[in-house]
Amino acid sequence: MSIPTIRWENGVLSIIDQTLLPMTMKHITLETVENVWEAIRSLRVRGAPAIGVAAALGVIVGAGQLNTDNLDEFITGVKKTIEYIATSRPTAVNLFWALARMRGVMQLYAGNSVSDLRQLLLDEALRIMNEDKTTCRNIGKHGAALVPDGATILTHCNAGALATVDYGTALGVIYAAHETGKNIAVYADETRPLLQGSRLTAWELMHAGVPVTLICDNMAAKVMYEKKIDLVIVGADRIAANGDTANKIGTYMVALAAQAHNIPFYVAAPSSTFDLTLPCGDQIPIEERAPQEVTHGMGKQTAPEGIAVYSPAFDVTPASLISAFITEQGVIYPPFEQTLKTLNG
Amino acid sequence: MSIPTIRWENGVLSIIDQTLLPMTMKHITLETVENVWEAIRSLRVRGAPAIGVAAALGVIVGAGQLNTDNLDEFITGVKKTIEYIATSRPTAVNLFWALARMRGVMQLYAGNSVSDLRQLLLDEALRIMNEDKTTCRNIGKHGAALVPDGATILTHCNAGALATVDYGTALGVIYAAHETGKNIAVYADETRPLLQGSRLTAWELMHAGVPVTLICDNMAAKVMYEKKIDLVIVGADRIAANGDTANKIGTYMVALAAQAHNIPFYVAAPSSTFDLTLPCGDQIPIEERAPQEVTHGMGKQTAPEGIAVYSPAFDVTPASLISAFITEQGVIYPPFEQTLKTLNG
Repeated sequence: MSIPTIRWENGVLSIIDQTLLPMTMKHITLETVENVWEAIRSLRVRGAPAIGVAAALGVIVGAGQLNTDNLDEFITGVKKTIEYIATSRPTAVNLFWALARMRGVMQLYAGNSVSDLRQLLLDEALRIMNEDKTTCRNIGKHGAALVPDGATILTHCNAGALATVDYGTALGVIYAAHETGKNIAVYADETRPLLQGSRLTAWELMHAGVPVTLICDNMAAKVMYEKKIDLVIVGADRIAANGDTANKIGTYMVALAAQAHNIPFYVAAPSSTFDLTLPCGDQIPIEERAPQEVTHGMGKQTAPEGIAVYSPAFDVTPASLISAFITEQGVIYPPFEQTLKTLNG
Repeated sequence: MSIPTIRWENGVLSIIDQTLLPMTMKHITLETVENVWEAIRSLRVRGAPAIGVAAALGVIVGAGQLNTDNLDEFITGVKKTIEYIATSRPTAVNLFWALARMRGVMQLYAGNSVSDLRQLLLDEALRIMNEDKTTCRNIGKHGAALVPDGATILTHCNAGALATVDYGTALGVIYAAHETGKNIAVYADETRPLLQGSRLTAWELMHAGVPVTLICDNMAAKVMYEKKIDLVIVGADRIAANGDTANKIGTYMVALAAQAHNIPFYVAAPSSTFDLTLPCGDQIPIEERAPQEVTHGMGKQTAPEGIAVYSPAFDVTPASLISAFITEQGVIYPPFEQTLKTLNG
């Protein structure tokens, strides 16, 4: 299982435009840093790990727009590029983590050649991209051990190949279990308002040959009550030091329902999604999205003109509802305030 | 607050076609019993009390299609009409309750005049319709006492004027509180897949001048976590003798979230929605709807071709999650296995 969500070929950044899925599978090139910003903002590329990689490569795109051989000018320009990309979305910490790595390259650079520094920045961006591929497969390997043969898994939103460079975190676990021959099936929450579950997760799983059934978000508890779900696996956008986890809106309700039915609830995420500078989830900034995504979400107005809308893009699942984190470094169990300290940053 | 959801004028049954709301407000006439069946099946008229009234008047429409002066033929024909209407939807018990009342008129009739029996049937159907108006206002009156001034209420789906003849059950409580001058506000779950919350509840509340904010179903727990909700009020489609309550899919997840946040969870329903012949909720038949309502719900395909879909139209909220029932006969508190026996049928 591998989907080319983000590509860097011949010095050109291209992504699958995920707003067109599942009806159209099309790569678009992002030729300017403004294109990159807009692609992240509009969820053409989304998912915390993919946002991080797109941001790192976005810095390269932005650097390419700087026509100068003056090192100070170049560094000033790249810093502005980094600050600009950082404004695209607030919640997924991978964005800031990747940009910090790019900034770090400049801070460490002791030479005086713009072209050398360009190369070092590109090396770092490609390293971030390639690390993501390895990271996801290691998440998959560690997580697959938690998935019993014959299990049915519920997932929310899309933490798949389309949320990473090519493989996925939560879906990486599912792919890894499937690839080792386990007979598994998935229920996918459609994930309102932008339907990443029905548009992206269902599409990915069908392509991978994993049996998948689509439900509306509000059906998850009923499916659990009917004993159809053995475990829940979701991704994450930012995880605080105590294990509180920001993920796509609706995750918290799934976690509450899982607890009520004694179903294990796992969060699959790379170490880059952990923000150990935040003691708990209340400090995680939560993006609010435009009302039109709720009222005109599917090409047709479905709410009265002028209706007030509240549309947080994420919620925070308290650590107490999480059975374990599946990371590339292994599975991490409670008490998270202690165990998360063992993560190598 | 009054919306003419169902009208009987000059011998003609008309309803607001709720599939066209909120963009178009249009009455359609139901000239044949097949029209009535289709209108119920397609949710042009929906909501347990409204379905009951439409079914009763549907029997009159069906009787009007019977051209006979032979009493036995007429009774046989009306019985077939009743059996046919009973197949339109399975979950809301008000449908069967209303049809049983119409059947009862025939069973009690000792005369030998088709035209007399026609009149008695019409009287009963109109009695069912008019009782609903009174019932809803009494539900409102009893429920309003539970709503503190300044309260914010979350509701799911539409249990409003559009779910009854003209006033509502859950929204009847909200209208009654609003009409007595209480300063209240509402969060309305959009209610996938058919969006009765955004299309109908938001529309009704805006017309009534009650402040309303629309959210996606999966945002309810976050809004509760933010302490924005003081109580939840929903309607019901069928309530078992122990208090287990079938209502629109997603209600169960709202109830689980309310419990987790110590928020009172009320069910507003007329006594005709209680089915005391069923000991518990597992016996309530749950309708499954067509996959297209999920995959093409808003005029555009939003899921991959051929995806498997599970779409139960209702779920059952266990009695243990329900704080009280608000009925036209008063507010009923736990232990429901005892207290529901006091309902006058």
